[in-house]
Amino acid sequence: MDERIGIRIPEVDVEARRRARERADALLMPSRALGRLLDLGEQVAGIAGFPTPDLSRKAVVVMAGDHGVTEEGVSAYPSDVTGQMVHGFAAGMAGINVLSRHAGIDVRVVDMGCRADLSALVASGAVIDMKVAPGTRNMRRQNAMSPEQAVLCVRRGAEVARRLADEGVAMIGTGDMGIGNTTPSAAIAVVATGRKARALTGRGTGIDDAGLSRKTRVIEQSISERAPSPRDALDILSKIGGFEIGGIAGLVLGAAERRLPVVIDGVISTAGAVLAWLLEPRVRDYLFAAHRSVEPAHEAMLALLGLRPILDLEMRLGEGTGCALAMPIIEAGAKVIREMATFAEAGVSGAT
Amino acid sequence: MDERIGIRIPEVDVEARRRARERADALLMPSRALGRLLDLGEQVAGIAGFPTPDLSRKAVVVMAGDHGVTEEGVSAYPSDVTGQMVHGFAAGMAGINVLSRHAGIDVRVVDMGCRADLSALVASGAVIDMKVAPGTRNMRRQNAMSPEQAVLCVRRGAEVARRLADEGVAMIGTGDMGIGNTTPSAAIAVVATGRKARALTGRGTGIDDAGLSRKTRVIEQSISERAPSPRDALDILSKIGGFEIGGIAGLVLGAAERRLPVVIDGVISTAGAVLAWLLEPRVRDYLFAAHRSVEPAHEAMLALLGLRPILDLEMRLGEGTGCALAMPIIEAGAKVIREMATFAEAGVSGAT
Repeated sequence: MDERIGIRIPEVDVEARRRARERADALLMPSRALGRLLDLGEQVAGIAGFPTPDLSRKAVVVMAGDHGVTEEGVSAYPSDVTGQMVHGFAAGMAGINVLSRHAGIDVRVVDMGCRADLSALVASGAVIDMKVAPGTRNMRRQNAMSPEQAVLCVRRGAEVARRLADEGVAMIGTGDMGIGNTTPSAAIAVVATGRKARALTGRGTGIDDAGLSRKTRVIEQSISERAPSPRDALDILSKIGGFEIGGIAGLVLGAAERRLPVVIDGVISTAGAVLAWLLEPRVRDYLFAAHRSVEPAHEAMLALLGLRPILDLEMRLGEGTGCALAMPIIEAGAKVIREMATFAEAGVSGAT
Repeated sequence: MDERIGIRIPEVDVEARRRARERADALLMPSRALGRLLDLGEQVAGIAGFPTPDLSRKAVVVMAGDHGVTEEGVSAYPSDVTGQMVHGFAAGMAGINVLSRHAGIDVRVVDMGCRADLSALVASGAVIDMKVAPGTRNMRRQNAMSPEQAVLCVRRGAEVARRLADEGVAMIGTGDMGIGNTTPSAAIAVVATGRKARALTGRGTGIDDAGLSRKTRVIEQSISERAPSPRDALDILSKIGGFEIGGIAGLVLGAAERRLPVVIDGVISTAGAVLAWLLEPRVRDYLFAAHRSVEPAHEAMLALLGLRPILDLEMRLGEGTGCALAMPIIEAGAKVIREMATFAEAGVSGAT
């Protein structure tokens, strides 16, 4: 772990995981008949250090920030929408609000670096203020942020995870809001995987063919001119990242530090998780990929992390919406191990 | 529709579906950014005849029955387990109980044709008595049931759906319990798709290679000796079916008759849905495939019905466990259309 971040992640508890597996193998069903649901329940047991953890308290954290690179015309929406959407989250009107209410998940919105003045929402308690600066600089022209800012946004993200852990939250989902943020996310994917920008750049919120070419070029030029070091997460973050992406990296690290499962959403969240993994490879054992996004950089980063998505519903909204659908499935895996009877408990005959 | 069954299924309401789509297109997100979730919500709108239906009342129906073909050694478990598992369902101990509690779904258990005397569970209200006979005959030696019994189990399955609709249930999931029932299900798949038994026979509860060869041969011989007519669902059901499979076919038809979305589980439920579809092709518009089971006949029947599974978690337990995980996702699709704000409602800028 980089000493500027200073987070220590415990090893997962293989004995708790083994005991969960032992119980799963005795449950009232043919061997492994609930498939990946059991794998999820067993992974959670190893993370929690207990074979049958209670995951009923769940939160999705929506990290918001603005991006200087929007000057280059990489998004279909104006930058103002970032702050407007934060107001929408605060009012409970957006996709993540609907899906989280449906699943009994808390939503926490964090201003990591929005241009808008969100102080009224901070004062009302609707938004957590972790603002590093009002938007990054344009990475096509200069580094997105200073090295100090990169450290700061990771540390602040971790601080959010610690607060949630202190409140008793048992599973954290990551979400994002930031007009323009598929551009730095794809750039991070290109640098971390070594693949070509034209293979990993997607349409984000829905740009046309000309926009896609422009976005691809902006990513190529930004990487070539900033030249981030491919194994140095803080260098990548400061040169071609975003405040909410660094916040997500910190959130992931802070959750793992506290032995909480972390569910990552789409391409922006996964870019944050890749940075966390570059800082501390052990974080991988704490990660669950909620879904497979349609953004091409997502698949490439999931492969780098060795994660297999739980859902595949052709979603690309972000905000943590994939997490809101996948977290109940992970919780179901844990509940199966905790609540299903064994053959012996139920008095049912076994296989002949 | 076969006049012996006498169920009329309404056409789905294309205008309600169009209005749901119109609202989905105005919601606070890039166009179609919630992917298949929106498709699910729009399909439900067409089924219910209303753009924003409330699906909060949900039930999974576990249809149970025994199979004479177990004499041929096609299952890893003894037939006694069917009745024992019904006791497990009544006690809330099984996989479907845990997953349904997790998702706020009612479980209804129906004795369609168990060998065990379940009258005490019927008297206590834990089991619905629709028993046609105490187990089918061995299809390898004679027809599994009489033509009259085939009609009876479909009609009784439809009656269960009508009762649930009268109670206010808004979405129904199908489940099964019956030792040996992947054998008639794979046989139905072979007859309905015209594919080879060796391509569609799976390991069910976990038989070994010798068992798999035996099971494949039993399916081939049963089809060749019973010679069911491939387009006649009642002929297929009576010759190579099962009481719970016929019950599921009826449940599916009865749900569609009452404009309720029906979520089908794994290979047994899908065999029931194929019979329902042969009886009334219009039923297809009411169907959702919960998940992709590892049983090979499942995929083949989903392709026949033109259904794409919502989940792919390598499950093969049956009982309706896939439905318990998928039904909340379908409900989420409906809730997004009902509860998310539009750009105009939220005062957020649109795409440039």
